[in-house]
Formats: sequence, C-alpha cells, structure tokens
Amino acid sequence: MEAARIDGRAPGGLRPITIERGVNRYAEGSALIRWGDTHVLCTATVEEKVPPFLRGSGSGWITAEYAMLPRSTQSRMQREINRGKRDARGSEIQRLIGRSLRAAVDMPRLGERTITIDCDVLQADGGTRTASISAGFVALFDALRTLKADGRLAEIPLKDQIAAVSVGKSGGALVLDLRYEEDSSADVDANVVMTGRGGIVEIQGTGEGAAFSRAELGQMLDLAASGIAEIQRRQLEVLGLTEDERRLFETCA
Amino acid sequence: MEAARIDGRAPGGLRPITIERGVNRYAEGSALIRWGDTHVLCTATVEEKVPPFLRGSGSGWITAEYAMLPRSTQSRMQREINRGKRDARGSEIQRLIGRSLRAAVDMPRLGERTITIDCDVLQADGGTRTASISAGFVALFDALRTLKADGRLAEIPLKDQIAAVSVGKSGGALVLDLRYEEDSSADVDANVVMTGRGGIVEIQGTGEGAAFSRAELGQMLDLAASGIAEIQRRQLEVLGLTEDERRLFETCA
Amino acid sequence: MEAARIDGRAPGGLRPITIERGVNRYAEGSALIRWGDTHVLCTATVEEKVPPFLRGSGSGWITAEYAMLPRSTQSRMQREINRGKRDARGSEIQRLIGRSLRAAVDMPRLGERTITIDCDVLQADGGTRTASISAGFVALFDALRTLKADGRLAEIPLKDQIAAVSVGKSGGALVLDLRYEEDSSADVDANVVMTGRGGIVEIQGTGEGAAFSRAELGQMLDLAASGIAEIQRRQLEVLGLTEDERRLFETCA
Amino acid sequence: MEAARIDGRAPGGLRPITIERGVNRYAEGSALIRWGDTHVLCTATVEEKVPPFLRGSGSGWITAEYAMLPRSTQSRMQREINRGKRDARGSEIQRLIGRSLRAAVDMPRLGERTITIDCDVLQADGGTRTASISAGFVALFDALRTLKADGRLAEIPLKDQIAAVSVGKSGGALVLDLRYEEDSSADVDANVVMTGRGGIVEIQGTGEGAAFSRAELGQMLDLAASGIAEIQRRQLEVLGLTEDERRLFETCA
Amino acid sequence: MEAARIDGRAPGGLRPITIERGVNRYAEGSALIRWGDTHVLCTATVEEKVPPFLRGSGSGWITAEYAMLPRSTQSRMQREINRGKRDARGSEIQRLIGRSLRAAVDMPRLGERTITIDCDVLQADGGTRTASISAGFVALFDALRTLKADGRLAEIPLKDQIAAVSVGKSGGALVLDLRYEEDSSADVDANVVMTGRGGIVEIQGTGEGAAFSRAELGQMLDLAASGIAEIQRRQLEVLGLTEDERRLFETCA
Amino acid sequence: MEAARIDGRAPGGLRPITIERGVNRYAEGSALIRWGDTHVLCTATVEEKVPPFLRGSGSGWITAEYAMLPRSTQSRMQREINRGKRDARGSEIQRLIGRSLRAAVDMPRLGERTITIDCDVLQADGGTRTASISAGFVALFDALRTLKADGRLAEIPLKDQIAAVSVGKSGGALVLDLRYEEDSSADVDANVVMTGRGGIVEIQGTGEGAAFSRAELGQMLDLAASGIAEIQRRQLEVLGLTEDERRLFETCA
Repeated sequence: MEAARIDGRAPGGLRPITIERGVNRYAEGSALIRWGDTHVLCTATVEEKVPPFLRGSGSGWITAEYAMLPRSTQSRMQREINRGKRDARGSEIQRLIGRSLRAAVDMPRLGERTITIDCDVLQADGGTRTASISAGFVALFDALRTLKADGRLAEIPLKDQIAAVSVGKSGGALVLDLRYEEDSSADVDANVVMTGRGGIVEIQGTGEGAAFSRAELGQMLDLAASGIAEIQRRQLEVLGLTEDERRLFETCA
Repeated sequence: MEAARIDGRAPGGLRPITIERGVNRYAEGSALIRWGDTHVLCTATVEEKVPPFLRGSGSGWITAEYAMLPRSTQSRMQREINRGKRDARGSEIQRLIGRSLRAAVDMPRLGERTITIDCDVLQADGGTRTASISAGFVALFDALRTLKADGRLAEIPLKDQIAAVSVGKSGGALVLDLRYEEDSSADVDANVVMTGRGGIVEIQGTGEGAAFSRAELGQMLDLAASGIAEIQRRQLEVLGLTEDERRLFETCA
Repeated sequence: MEAARIDGRAPGGLRPITIERGVNRYAEGSALIRWGDTHVLCTATVEEKVPPFLRGSGSGWITAEYAMLPRSTQSRMQREINRGKRDARGSEIQRLIGRSLRAAVDMPRLGERTITIDCDVLQADGGTRTASISAGFVALFDALRTLKADGRLAEIPLKDQIAAVSVGKSGGALVLDLRYEEDSSADVDANVVMTGRGGIVEIQGTGEGAAFSRAELGQMLDLAASGIAEIQRRQLEVLGLTEDERRLFETCA
Repeated sequence: MEAARIDGRAPGGLRPITIERGVNRYAEGSALIRWGDTHVLCTATVEEKVPPFLRGSGSGWITAEYAMLPRSTQSRMQREINRGKRDARGSEIQRLIGRSLRAAVDMPRLGERTITIDCDVLQADGGTRTASISAGFVALFDALRTLKADGRLAEIPLKDQIAAVSVGKSGGALVLDLRYEEDSSADVDANVVMTGRGGIVEIQGTGEGAAFSRAELGQMLDLAASGIAEIQRRQLEVLGLTEDERRLFETCA
Repeated sequence: MEAARIDGRAPGGLRPITIERGVNRYAEGSALIRWGDTHVLCTATVEEKVPPFLRGSGSGWITAEYAMLPRSTQSRMQREINRGKRDARGSEIQRLIGRSLRAAVDMPRLGERTITIDCDVLQADGGTRTASISAGFVALFDALRTLKADGRLAEIPLKDQIAAVSVGKSGGALVLDLRYEEDSSADVDANVVMTGRGGIVEIQGTGEGAAFSRAELGQMLDLAASGIAEIQRRQLEVLGLTEDERRLFETCA
Repeated sequence: MEAARIDGRAPGGLRPITIERGVNRYAEGSALIRWGDTHVLCTATVEEKVPPFLRGSGSGWITAEYAMLPRSTQSRMQREINRGKRDARGSEIQRLIGRSLRAAVDMPRLGERTITIDCDVLQADGGTRTASISAGFVALFDALRTLKADGRLAEIPLKDQIAAVSVGKSGGALVLDLRYEEDSSADVDANVVMTGRGGIVEIQGTGEGAAFSRAELGQMLDLAASGIAEIQRRQLEVLGLTEDERRLFETCA
C-alpha cells in the first residue's frame, strides 16, 4: 500500500491552483499564481531593444528573472544584495524559465524587442520554478496581446503553449507536484516542461538519494504529462481566448 | 479657486486604503496594504538575536528592509543585485521605516530579539514609504501577538501606535497623500510619522522647487495629522483588538 | 534650571566655526570647515555633462558625495570598499546634501553641466551633514565664480544662500548645534536647512526616544533660524563678495 | 542519409579522450582530461569541515566549483571578478557537477569532511560539464584513496562510479558527444549522468529550437548509455584499481 | 647642460616639506604632510588584535591603507565604492607602505596588537607613496609613544627610522623627488625606502620607456640616499625627541 | 660554509625549466611554463581595440592578468569572485607583468590593438611572477608572429627580449630563483626583469626581515643577470627563430 501524502492528495493529484491576470497596472502582462502555498507574481515587460548578439537580426528575445522575497520561506533569507552575490540556485532557475518560455514564441515574428518575465516568489512551498513557468506563460501571452493591441505586432507570434510541473519518487512511490516537505525528502525529483501537444521542452531529473531507471523516468513523464494537461486547461480558462486566439492555439497543437 | 486633483480628491482626502493581515503563512506577522495604486507587502520576522551593539543589553531591536519589485514602476527597474549596488533612495527609506517603527515598541520589554520588517513594493504610485510604515505597524503588532501567544513575551511591549502620511504643496495648494504624478511635480513634499497621541515621530520636509515658510509647515502638519488619524482608525479596525489590547492602546494614548 | 552643556555652551550657542577657501589646487571650488571638532573638506568639481534624465534639457545638475575617513571617528571604521557595500547612513546624507545645494542654484541658467560636491569628513564630532552643507555652499559658490571667470557662464546663477544646523532636545532642554555626545543621547534631533531669507529648504526631525509636539518643533525652528543666520554671516565673510555679488545675494534675500 | 559530422565521427562516436592523474602536487586527487579539444583540470581538495547544515551530523559533503580560463574560448572572456558577478551558466554547471559527484560517495561513511572538486576549463570545445564530471570522478576517487592511505578513512566509501556525456539532435540526426559547433546549432541537447550500473543520476534535456518526444528521449538515453559505458572503461583503466578496489566497484555495480 | 626642472629645482633638490603632528584627535598618532603640492593625511590606529596568522604568536602587526580623495587629482576620480572594485594601483601602494613601515618596528616587542596606518591623499602631485611612508613613520612613532604613555608598552619597540623618496631619469638627467608632470614623462622611475643607517628596505625601479643600467641604478640610489637623509632630519625635528628617544634612534643607527 | 639549499641546488642554480608553445588552440600565442614545481599557463590574446587613453593615438597596448587556480597552493585558496574582491597581491603582480612586457614591444609599430597576456598559475612553488613574465614573452612573441602571418603587421615590432628571475638572501647566503619555502623565510627578496642586452626593466627588492646594502644589491643583480641570460637562451630555443627573426633579436641586443 502506498504511503499517504502529507496533504492527503492522490499520487497523481495537483494542489489547488488559481491564476489571477492583470494584477499589475504597469506591466504589459502579469499573473499571480497561487499553487497551493506557493505564490508567485509574474510580470512581463516589453522593451524595444535586444541583447547585443541579436542586434540587427530582426529577431526578438525572451528572458526571465527569478527571486524570492526574504520571508517567502520558513526562515527569513537574506536579500541577494545584502549577501553581495547572486544566488546560484536562483540563477539556475531563471535560466530554465527563460529557455522554457522562449519555446512559446516565434522570435523572428516577435521582432527586435525583448520581453522580460520577472518571477518574484511571495511565498514558497515547493514547485516555485514550475509555477513561474506556468504563470509566466500567461503573463507572456498577455504581453503579446498588448503588443498586438498597440499595433506593434500584426499577429500574436505564438509557437506553443508552455506549462510545467514537478514529479518525484518519495518513499518508494511516484508522486506529482511535490510540496517542499516532499521535495526535500524525495529520492528522485524532476521538473518537466511541455508544449500544448505534449512535446518535451525541458526535462531536468535528479536522483538525489538514488539513481533511477529508464522505466521510472517513463512513469514520471506520464505523470507529468497528465499534470501539465490539467495546468494548460487552467491557463486557457484564465486567458479567456477569443475565437482567433483559440485557432492560434489549435494550430500550435 | 484650487486646482482639481488628478483623481478628483479633495485637498485633504486620502486615497482608498485596504489592509489585509496574515497574508504570509511563515512570517510572525504580515500585512498587504493597497493604498490607491500603491501596494506594499510587509512581513515581520522575529529572530532570537540582536545586533552586536545590543548583545547583553537585555534590549531588543526593530529594523526594516525596503525594496521595489522590478516592475512596480512605470518603466522596469533593474534589480539591485544586477546593478551591483544598494539603491541609495531605498537605503534612506528603510532607515526611516526602521526608526519610525522602533518608536512603537518598548525595547527593554521586547527582550534580546530582533524584529525585521520587510517592505516589498509590488506596485508603486507615490507614498510607498508611508504605506510601508502604516502597514509595517500592523505586521509588527501581529508579530508581538505571536510572541505573546508563544509564551515568549508575557505582555505586548507596545509603546505607541505609529502611522504615516505624505503632504505637499502642489500648484500652490496644500494636498494630503500625494500620488506619484503629484509628488514629482510638487514644490514642497513632506512625510510625517505620528503616534496615536499625535506626537511627531518623524518629519521630513523638502522644498524641491522652492523653500517653504513656518506657516506652511504648520498647515502641512495639520493636514498630516488629520490623515494619520484616519489611517490609525483603519489600523485598529483591521487589527481587531481584544479588550486587553484596546486598553494597551488607550494607555499609550 | 537647565543642565549645563558638556562644553559649557549656552543652549543656543554654536561651536567655534572657521571656513578656509581654496584649499585644493585642482577643484573649481573648495572649502575646509572646522566646526568645533568636526572637520570636513568640501570640493566642487565641474563637469561638462549631465545625468541621462537631463540630457538635451538645457538644465544643469548638482550632486553630492559624502564619506568619512576611517579614523574620523573614535573607533576606526572600515572603508566602504572593504566592507563591500555603500554605507546606508552615508547614502542618506549625501542625498540630503545634494537636495539642499540644488536649492542654491538656478539649474536652467547653470546650463548642461554637473557640479559635484565631495564632502569628506576628516574628523567627526556631530553635525557632519550640516557642516557639509554649509561649507559645500562656499565651495559651490566658488565653482560658479570659476565658471564665470572662465567665460563659461555670463553670470552666477545663484538662487539662494544655503546653510544648515542641527537642533535637538537633550535632557529636557532645547539645544543648538549638537556635538556627538549630545546627539547620541538626545531625545529629539533635527537638521534644518534654510535659505538666506529664512525659508525652510529641508527639515528632518526625529524623535529617537520620544515623540515631540508641534510647539517643540516651533521652538527648534526658532533656534535653528538663529544659528543659521550666524553661519550665513560666516559664509559671506569668507566669500569676500564683490559689489556685484553682494547685490546677487540681496536679490535672493 | 545522415549528414556527416564536422569531424567525420559516427553519430554514436566519442571524441578521443585521455585522462592524466596526479597532475597537481598539492591536491589530494587530481585529473587532467583532454576530451577532443576540451581540456579540463580537476582537483579534489579535502578539508576537515562541513557546511553549517551538516555540522554534528557525522556526514560529509562534496561540492564543486567550475570556471573557464579567459582564453578557453574562441573569443577571450572577461574574468568573473572583473565582470563583478558570478557567471549564471557557471553557477548552474557547478551545481550539476556537485550533485552528480555526491551520488558517488556514501556521505555518512565519508565522515564530517568536505571534498571540493575544482573544475577549471583550460580549453573548451563543447561538453565541458560532462568532461568535468567524468574527470572529477577520477580526482575524487584519488582523494578518497589519499584519505584511506592517511588513515583518515578505514575504507573507501564509494557508492557508485559516475560518468557523463552529452547527446543531441542536430540536423535531424541523433548524435553523441557534441562539439561546440554541433551544440550551438542543435535542436535538442541533453546531458546525462549515469552510475556504473546504468542508473540515471541526472538528465537535463532541452529543446532549444523544438520540443522532443518521449521516443526521441529514449533514443538519446540509449546513445548516452553506450557513451558513458565507454567513458567508465577509461576511468577504470586510468585509475589502475587494486583487487580490493575492483571488488568495491563490482559491489556498486 | 642639464634641462631645467619645471619648478626650477636643482636635480637633487627636494620640494618644500612640512609635517604637522597630532592633526586628528582620535587617532593614537597622526601626521599631515605637505610635500610640495602633495598632501597626505596619515593616521595610526592601534587595535588589540592581530590577523589570524599571528594569533597566539605574541607578535604584532603593522598594515596600511591608501586611498585618494576624488578631487585629489586634476580630473575628479570616481570613488572605489562607486567603481565597485579596489583600485589596483592603490592596492599595490598600500602593500608597499605596510611592508616599509613593518621594518620600523620589532614585532615581538610590539605584542599582539595591530597598528593600521591610513594614508588618505588630499591632493596629489607625484610622490604620494613616498610621502605616505615618510609621514606614516611619524604617525606610527606617535602611536608607539601613546602605547607607552598608556602603560601598554614598557618601551618603544623601534627597530629603525624609515623614510622614502622617488628618483628618476627624465630628459636624460637624473632627478630627485619627481612631481607628477616629471613622473609621467620620466624614462626611469624608482621609489626607494631606507632606514636611518642608509640600509635599503625597498627599491622599486621601473624603466617605463627604456631599460636602465647598473651604473644608473647606483646614481639613483646615491641621489635617493641624500634626499632620504634630509627627510629623516625633518622627521626627527617634528617628532621633538626626548633624550631617551634620541638614544633609541641612535641605537638603531 | 654555505647552508645547502633544500633541493641541493648551487646558490646560483636555476630549477629545471621547460616551456611548451602553442598549448591553446584559440589564443594568438600561448606557452605553458614548468619551472620546477611552478606551472603557469600564459595565453596572448589580440583584440583590435585600445584603452580610452590611447584611442586615436596610433599606438597599441599590452596588458596582463594574473590569477591562481584555487588548488595551485598547499592549502586551497578561495576564488576571487567568491571572496568578492580582487586579490591585492594578484593586482600588484599583474601590473608588474604588464609593465615588463610592454618593454618588449614598440607600441606605435604595434598599431591600435591590445595584446592581453593571461597568466594562470596551475601550480605554485615560488617565482610565479617571474615565470609569468618569462613565458608571457614567448606567448607574446607568438602573438606578434600571428599578426604578421595574418598580414595585420608588416613586421614584428620587437623592441627587446624580456625575461625575469628572483634572487634573495636566505640564511646569510645569496641565492638565485627561490622556491616557496626559501622565499617565505628569506631576509631579502628581489625580482629582476631584464632585456636581452642586460638592461634593467624592473627591479623590486624588499628587505622583509632586514635592510640590505648597496653592495648586496649589486651581488643580487649579478646573480639575477646570470639567471636571466640562461632563461633567455631557453626562450630562444623554444621559439625556434627564423633567420629574419634572429636578426630582429640581434638588432635589439
């Protein structure tokens, strides 16, 4: 018999998720995700410039920044500026968010502009990077809508719908969407990012306590796919697509 | 005739203010203030240690940190860690918040512990420092309640109720509670912090474009006092005082 | 009966003040102020450029930097570069100095150039910020004279004479110009910056140990005004005004 | 027909690899790997202390640092200390190396000491992280031998043999061990870390240009497994195991 | 015929030098040197602690810090804290000052305490490092006197009198004590630190534009020795030695 | 009788030295020097730009950077980026290397380009700066050859051959080429940089424990000259000069 999860969820169950759009009056797109006790505020900022390596290329860029508020965690963490250096874990996470969301957009059609997705963790209980990607997609899509509404883009250069979830092996059982306590005691822990068609954009799996087999990886990907499908349904719901936009997503898929 | 304010308020009118308590599950106290379009998340963290200069003194300490999220403003601001140095304006503001809130608590009765008030601006439209002080007081009081509930304190070492507001002279008229646009064009701009009894804890007045007279300072303080009285009513409402706590506040006053 | 002050001064008495001009052979203006045991070296540097937000505006800028030498204090302080971060108190002070001295000059008439006032504290015994402002004004005026002498300015764009002093409440008595020992034990402590006409440019009052009343604030401003008038007399003496310059100051006043 | 690789290798072929042990006279273990044109110097340093979170636990720790020499790349890169901040990519890589090599050792049996694996890239042509892990294992094993030879450990606390390789999809074909040019144009790119028994310790797969399917992931893991088996043969050869040590590796496997 | 020097000095002439002692009321020793237009403020701070490598050794330590005020030079220099990194030239100079002054004191007899010599350049016109060493010695000796007066030392642990001067080859001629203009156009430039007996403590000679011969080095050392003898006379004059102290210096010599 | 050296060398003997050229496939020149147990990797990078002070001058620039790998020393050193500041000793050394190698090249004939010599110490046993200069010259000369081969230079703008060695006084005896143990216990320690004609480019001598006399300095320079002559023979051997290049060196000499 499987060990019960600390919050009584089924092994393949997600925590309650709500996404609120338009939470910031200045950002071109924004979303506040409450994924269980993990709360992340994502804003998408459009700037009419690109990094040096893209200047003159006609292509756009999407980048992300990730940070945790000092008391987003059980014990207060010192701010990066006071520690005097960038947090290595945060650097790694923001690179993952950036790569994942770049898969959502057709860069040449975006044109020479940069969209920066800021993901600020207000409260953390595991899964902050997958929450950031999943809500970051919503903020990003709203920023693309703003660009179209402003006449800066003729059409939304969507390439794919992007969402993410964590899976792991804890106490011998495979589980979806780990809370902090589950995550820190898990033997295996993976973060999976997928498109609307179920293609893998990113898989990062780590055997912290023990290596894992090809078969286990397969089971984890099954579990992740089911969770991501559910998160993508929520993204579409909250985005409230127009008919034209719906076709855009269907074309992707 | 006076010039109308950009949002139609009376010269002595406050913007709509709501304070939400208990918004962070880890912090000993927390409050999210929405003061017009200025939104600040305040958390109060208790740590059982004091800075070196207080070790062995038996006295406690209250300190504050203040930061703005990158897209809390019209144009995205770079994070301090990426600029590589502490923002001077932020340093000045967090010193003001710390000094102001230290006036709320009797340090020897707090004992050798530190309460850190983190004020993170989610969205800014002027008055972020006065919002931080006013909501910081609510988070601080809840942290003191937690210490009492935990048995770490026999009684709440409250010295005074603290709140703050801005006043200014804009277009020849004195106005209460300046929005960003009003503030950036004001000739005179002052931030006032007061106790529940109307004592001045801090006054910082600046004649950006023109010096001001003793009489004008007096009028600004009158306006500030009326605004702070209203904010203090909101603080008490949201705190939902018990009978014992009410007496505590009355003793202060 | 009032408590005697540690150096026997009357409550409204200033410490001995000397200002020496032209102490640096490279700077466009410079002044070394010895205000009791507080010694500050101020230099004014003119650069033919302005910060980004003023480019193309035709307006100039005045900014200040403030730092303390390691052994300007009783115990040696580590240099900022070795601590690895900007000192928050220093940041706050240099912002105050900059704002105060900007009130002295008519920026459009200064033209697109920046004057930087460096205030380096050689020895500190309280009142370093008011000494910096008071001597900074002298260095600044000499820099304006240099610009006129060089033919870069047709006339000196003076708007006002600026000086500053501290006042406080210590042991129940109001006192002018606090030394370090008085300042660190004061209940209330205010720094006041005024124009030659007695207008208030900046007032920063803090009730460190106790709040203060409107009446006390009024008394402190009276005391400050008398001290500032005396300091302004010293500034004029040391500047040795020409007839034309004297008229310039009278027009302000 | 498959496109030929730039250096004529078969899709599943490795570049020539040599590992030289004992290249540093001070380090407890060291290895210089020349993997095609990627050259990495790995040193293992033993220190009799552990990070705060392990003090008193009886358990040891393994950590890694990764850096590139300025001219390890086509264009000279500025040193991190001159850029003033930690390189985000480097932070991510050193976290991966550390996690991977921690899977090699039984921490409680290591005891309260830290082994730091420094991986300094002398020359880079793709695959620096997998070269670092593969050579880092050799340096680490030699450091464990040193601890045993010194009498600080009764036996070598080996848990598993660890090696790593990259795989990718480039121009429609799956390829093993990507050079820089292949890597930068690849659609899919994965780094795989495995134990001697073929268990997965870490998989990081990214669809830079296009998402990938479950089937493709499977094929990439097959390719990786064959490459890693070959690298593990090289590790054993260069380590020149004693009979006792050979049994140790067999027990793992 | 020799080219005349810009200020009409003889090739072996020193600029006018004055040293003022006791210029800082807090420091255990202090000296302000005005060496032509080079002005350096030196303070000596005693702290009852030593760096880690000397703890428990019974020996003391002498270290130096060197910095330039922003407007000590023709063009204003940015402060190190604002540039975000230690100035390399300054690091090199402060290491030289520290090494030179350590030669003045018998460390075991100093006991486990550190004397820090802060050398802050108020105005620079060449020779700031030799001025720092020469005035630093005066501040250091006064700090030793303070330790004796306080009863912390039974006798002054003087090992040698230390002074320094620059020499160079400019326009074909050997010259003593280079001003900035001479220094920046010199072909050869050396800084020499000597004891009261004429022993060499430090020689740093650089052929910026051309190498120099053994013979030229010899002539430069002759010139330096004569200049240093003169500076040492000034040090003794300003120190106003007691009979006991005079014997101390004679014993050195 | 002289004390024997720890490795049995004669007082004037050098450690075994090998220099390997072309060790980096990207750098315009590179050399790995193994000088006893001191191993330094030098790369020369050509960039078609100069520092601001040379723009438009037609002249080139040569600069150096010096760093030690963490485990180049007996105890592991923290990386500079993790300590958060530039190492002062390293700054001083790289300034010395840069100055020394600038003496090798005729800057106007180099043209407006910069050659950066990176000296990374893989293993240190004393004499890292002299090894860096001696091998840096080889890398630099190869970079000049590359520029000529590329047609960017018509001829190699060589001014002089540059090499360096350390000398010292240890246990009463003068010795050449100090190992770390000898260096750290030496009374006097000097680094000497010379041209092919025996001209002195740089002499840095320090009496750590005792001052030294003019006569001793002379003896040290004799010893250094003999060592440098030998190192210069090795440089020429490894460079494998063509007839034309040989004439170039002879013209210098």
